[in-house]
Amino acid sequence: MYRMKTYAIASIFYFLLLLPATSVPAVTDSLPSWNDGPSRQAITAFVQAVTDKSSPDYVPPSGRIAVFDNDGTLWSEQPAYFQLFFAMDRVREMAKDHPEWKHQQPFQAALEGDMKALAASGKEGLIELVMTTHAGMTTDEFAEIVKKWLQTAKHPTLHKPYTQLVFKPMLELLDYLRANGFKTFIVSGGGIEFMRPWTEEVYGIPPEQVVGSSIVTKFEMRDGKPVLIREAKLNFIDDKAGKPVGINQHIGRRPIFAFGNSDGDLQMLQYTTLAGGGKRFAGIVHHTDGDREFDYDRDSHMGRLDKALTEAEVHDWTVVDMKMEWKVIYP
Amino acid sequence: MYRMKTYAIASIFYFLLLLPATSVPAVTDSLPSWNDGPSRQAITAFVQAVTDKSSPDYVPPSGRIAVFDNDGTLWSEQPAYFQLFFAMDRVREMAKDHPEWKHQQPFQAALEGDMKALAASGKEGLIELVMTTHAGMTTDEFAEIVKKWLQTAKHPTLHKPYTQLVFKPMLELLDYLRANGFKTFIVSGGGIEFMRPWTEEVYGIPPEQVVGSSIVTKFEMRDGKPVLIREAKLNFIDDKAGKPVGINQHIGRRPIFAFGNSDGDLQMLQYTTLAGGGKRFAGIVHHTDGDREFDYDRDSHMGRLDKALTEAEVHDWTVVDMKMEWKVIYP
Repeated sequence: MYRMKTYAIASIFYFLLLLPATSVPAVTDSLPSWNDGPSRQAITAFVQAVTDKSSPDYVPPSGRIAVFDNDGTLWSEQPAYFQLFFAMDRVREMAKDHPEWKHQQPFQAALEGDMKALAASGKEGLIELVMTTHAGMTTDEFAEIVKKWLQTAKHPTLHKPYTQLVFKPMLELLDYLRANGFKTFIVSGGGIEFMRPWTEEVYGIPPEQVVGSSIVTKFEMRDGKPVLIREAKLNFIDDKAGKPVGINQHIGRRPIFAFGNSDGDLQMLQYTTLAGGGKRFAGIVHHTDGDREFDYDRDSHMGRLDKALTEAEVHDWTVVDMKMEWKVIYP
Repeated sequence: MYRMKTYAIASIFYFLLLLPATSVPAVTDSLPSWNDGPSRQAITAFVQAVTDKSSPDYVPPSGRIAVFDNDGTLWSEQPAYFQLFFAMDRVREMAKDHPEWKHQQPFQAALEGDMKALAASGKEGLIELVMTTHAGMTTDEFAEIVKKWLQTAKHPTLHKPYTQLVFKPMLELLDYLRANGFKTFIVSGGGIEFMRPWTEEVYGIPPEQVVGSSIVTKFEMRDGKPVLIREAKLNFIDDKAGKPVGINQHIGRRPIFAFGNSDGDLQMLQYTTLAGGGKRFAGIVHHTDGDREFDYDRDSHMGRLDKALTEAEVHDWTVVDMKMEWKVIYP
């Protein structure tokens, strides 16, 4: 009798133990692609401090807001932002209805894959390229175009689908933060509607937690159906000083954790860490691995990391040495 | 032996049963302030259909997006939007530094509580009033001003704190939806930063799930601290055709459930229900209770409900007869 009772109670306790065991993150196994270097240590120390109820740095779950840049922080951005390759592929697809593009910039450059000529078309050329390829359809239609593109498109030099060029260590970091009660957001200079069709599947970040640049949309009844038309007009640029503005507009509170990789993220890192009180974390992905990914910082034409690298030293921000600290780059 | 074993297994099963019992909402007890009328029946039938995995109308939790107007839908809006009373109280507080306001419209009208003169100052007068009282400080400072105001301010005729003038049946509805896996958002013509300081406490809706009108903010380093300055410039009006635009900008997907109370919500209700496929719900709070709250619709100067009421008949939207269907109005 006694033995059975013990067994019964033990069974119940064992069952009780099983439940929390699956939801409490095992810290030592949470970031397997990170070497046990200074960045990993800084991240886990921060997360432990703000999630430990007995810690003076404890932050309740509602305040655990983490923001991530996308290009160069969650996926690669060389030799050009992937959204530019999307625009160029769109030009190729649309070209059959525009024979004049063969001799007209910036379209000719896009058709020929001539990055130099494209750059030479300047800011106006790029805006024309983006507006031509990103506007003039409904938001639902655009989301479908992006999804279809991702299913077939491949990176021009790495020859892989773009969604496979995301950083495995950063996917683990997103999971680790969420397992610790953080709400994770993307705050990117990229197009908000270019990212939303795939961020949930690839990063586990739903559309409403994606902040980005946008063009104007307009409500319209089309054949009795309510739609939003994408217009060829800039609405908001979510870059540099625009990032804190976008964060405030969409999230409405100051994050306590931010990760970027370039000077475009400087103000977001400042906004997150230099005010608001309590413990705060700023991280920078430093592209030091020319063999496995790319190697660039202060002189890069894209994802340039100069002022933010200098300021990281002043404020003791965490700079991730990709080559030294990441066991693998891509999944 | 056999009996003990049975007991042990039964204990475990009983324990298993206890767990889901607390998370599955008891539908009959979830909306106690609603009479068992057509609106309550329509709401519960919709929620049961989209949450039942065996139903052809099943929607996975990630798609359960519910949007609510605020003024007149979640709290009262008569004899004027509460944010206008906030602006008028601000004018009174700021007046000591502006002796000239005694003889200068729209400030004189605000100081004297003269709603007719205020209305006579027109749209420009109102915008001047809002900009003077809502801009020129940091976003953090503005949030503090709003919080302090709510602690002491009282409605001019009902003599209650504004946060007590929220609708109890709607608070229950928000809870009921969240208990059924919905994510609840506010989509209001009111100021986004006027609502965010209190929506989490009052409605259980966190800042990042509040969409509203906004003025321009600008990033700045002030004494080495990163702040956002509120500028006297309109950024976005989240009303009428602006509501679907705001929904797309902030949420990035089409809601399946929307509640409003006026023509300002018409496009939001259309956008939610007339496209996207599957089962969808549109609700309208109809202010029919002049005794307990206010009585107004087609001819009202504020919260006018005319076209949307007509369209509700065409599309069989749920129109809540406040007087008949709500047992209580305020908590």
